[in-house]
Amino acid sequence: MTIQDVAKAAGVSPMTVSHVINDHPHVRTETRERVLRAIEELDYRVNVAARNLRTGRTGTIGLAVPEIDRPYYGQLAAEIIKVAAGHHLRVAIEQTGASREGELAALALSRNRLYDGLILSTVGLGPADTDLLRVDHPVVILGERIFDGPVDHVAMPNSAGARAATRHLLERGCRRVALIDGPQRGEVDVSSLRYDGYREALDEAGLPFDPALVAPIEQLTMERGAAAARRLAGSGAGFDGVFCVTDTVALGALRGLADSGLRVPDDVKVIGFDNIAEGAYSVPSLSSIDPDHALMAGTAVGFLVKRMAEKGAARQAPREFVSPFSLVARESTG
Amino acid sequence: MTIQDVAKAAGVSPMTVSHVINDHPHVRTETRERVLRAIEELDYRVNVAARNLRTGRTGTIGLAVPEIDRPYYGQLAAEIIKVAAGHHLRVAIEQTGASREGELAALALSRNRLYDGLILSTVGLGPADTDLLRVDHPVVILGERIFDGPVDHVAMPNSAGARAATRHLLERGCRRVALIDGPQRGEVDVSSLRYDGYREALDEAGLPFDPALVAPIEQLTMERGAAAARRLAGSGAGFDGVFCVTDTVALGALRGLADSGLRVPDDVKVIGFDNIAEGAYSVPSLSSIDPDHALMAGTAVGFLVKRMAEKGAARQAPREFVSPFSLVARESTG
Repeated sequence: MTIQDVAKAAGVSPMTVSHVINDHPHVRTETRERVLRAIEELDYRVNVAARNLRTGRTGTIGLAVPEIDRPYYGQLAAEIIKVAAGHHLRVAIEQTGASREGELAALALSRNRLYDGLILSTVGLGPADTDLLRVDHPVVILGERIFDGPVDHVAMPNSAGARAATRHLLERGCRRVALIDGPQRGEVDVSSLRYDGYREALDEAGLPFDPALVAPIEQLTMERGAAAARRLAGSGAGFDGVFCVTDTVALGALRGLADSGLRVPDDVKVIGFDNIAEGAYSVPSLSSIDPDHALMAGTAVGFLVKRMAEKGAARQAPREFVSPFSLVARESTG
Repeated sequence: MTIQDVAKAAGVSPMTVSHVINDHPHVRTETRERVLRAIEELDYRVNVAARNLRTGRTGTIGLAVPEIDRPYYGQLAAEIIKVAAGHHLRVAIEQTGASREGELAALALSRNRLYDGLILSTVGLGPADTDLLRVDHPVVILGERIFDGPVDHVAMPNSAGARAATRHLLERGCRRVALIDGPQRGEVDVSSLRYDGYREALDEAGLPFDPALVAPIEQLTMERGAAAARRLAGSGAGFDGVFCVTDTVALGALRGLADSGLRVPDDVKVIGFDNIAEGAYSVPSLSSIDPDHALMAGTAVGFLVKRMAEKGAARQAPREFVSPFSLVARESTG
């Protein structure tokens, strides 16, 4: 059974069959369907393992994220899959569980050539692990600004975004702004950077920092966000605004504030970070910082594809991209 | 560079290195880290393409879903990735866009041996396509009860769950129950089956069916759910309950009802289907039908692994599993 047999059965050229198999664009829907049907009917199979051995490519890139069921990562993955498909690449998703070990395993797998390259969202790996990233296998780090590192990096505007979010609460009249903060694991993780932005905005406004207004949580989930909001409400610390380290945490906080009998935005104003789709539909809808997921996803895949095309001595210096952001004001800040 | 060199550098046996590479359990964390570090330092690479050619396996299964950024699919994928890892299988995610063409492409890719097997969530493929599933490549259909088909199938309790949801609204005192319904594509798609359950519950209660209370939407998104709820509220049809075809649609409907000045549950009671995590934290929290994702994910992977182990004549008849369900009553139904 050859590609010629499929072409004959479908009434197209072998080149067209090849285009369909390799998922090229510019094949008409009707033609594609006819070829796919012929492939099914003739039970034709490309010997992918043999082709991989010949080309040294698998056509698959890895995407390692802490957990795919968090809306932020789900929405980022959907964008990355879409952009990768435009480069004829499929995406295999690894869940690292936000652990250093899970991230190391994803790196090792990718280097073992299961993937042509890897987009790695680092949460567990820290600055001390920089050396482990000195590899000639294509890797793009996505997310925190952990590494001034040896690999390409697409970063969030963490501090600047957090500063803008906190400033927005102050501009809306808040004077006692609380922070629901994630786990701080070092100087340059996402929670520490957003904490810095929060502090900077208070300083700028000449407002004192009150540790009683900071509620740290261990996991960036709705459950922990709700519990932290209830804790803040019950502490008697007194607050009229909350900046939450992520939107998922903020959606939980909206729930926790309702449980505590506090009205948003009348009693307390709330803002998150990430601009996940759910925030536009919550009651009240959620104000947020939008770091432009589509641009980040497109840039990360673009960096990786460039790396995959480079050979040996032609290798370029690490590329770095910090996404711009915008503030999205909705009902939760009045 | 051989596996022996890595073993020597890490101070372990070659067997242990092999276990780490193949992601076996029962390797201590500390040992695993030492081996991974040695692999990085020595830049050791398994020739995966050659190994695939030798074993005829890639160690990767495909999971084809309409869109990974819908919470239901994200949460299902997270479960499947977890269960698959226990079988030393990675999961590559394909987005089909809920189209027949996307689902056919996922099937063709899987048969081309990019994957050892495929879990396919069918939305676009219909009963007329049953013949395309007569393949000897391992495939498990997940979701709608479309096929009395030639392949293994893990199904949702669509009609029974929808009947229970509607009955719950009636038991809470509703007499004019609306339905926000998805696109109906044939007799056995998810929306048609849940529509049937809604009708059955009305019949059981001796209540008339009123077409004015059915709001169909083309996509199962929060946006469409919100718009449908506003449409119902503005139509003057009069309703005191809404069954929404999915939780994502229901979360949108909560928003649409708030926009229309209707209070949930005082004016209108709302129930969804799927029991996604977000429903526990919305304001009000969302009542739902829980089809047991973890059990469905575990069964789907279990079916696929069994199929992958079968050879030729030993092939078993198609397996079928319909998940049990439970009703989760929260604030949205009072």
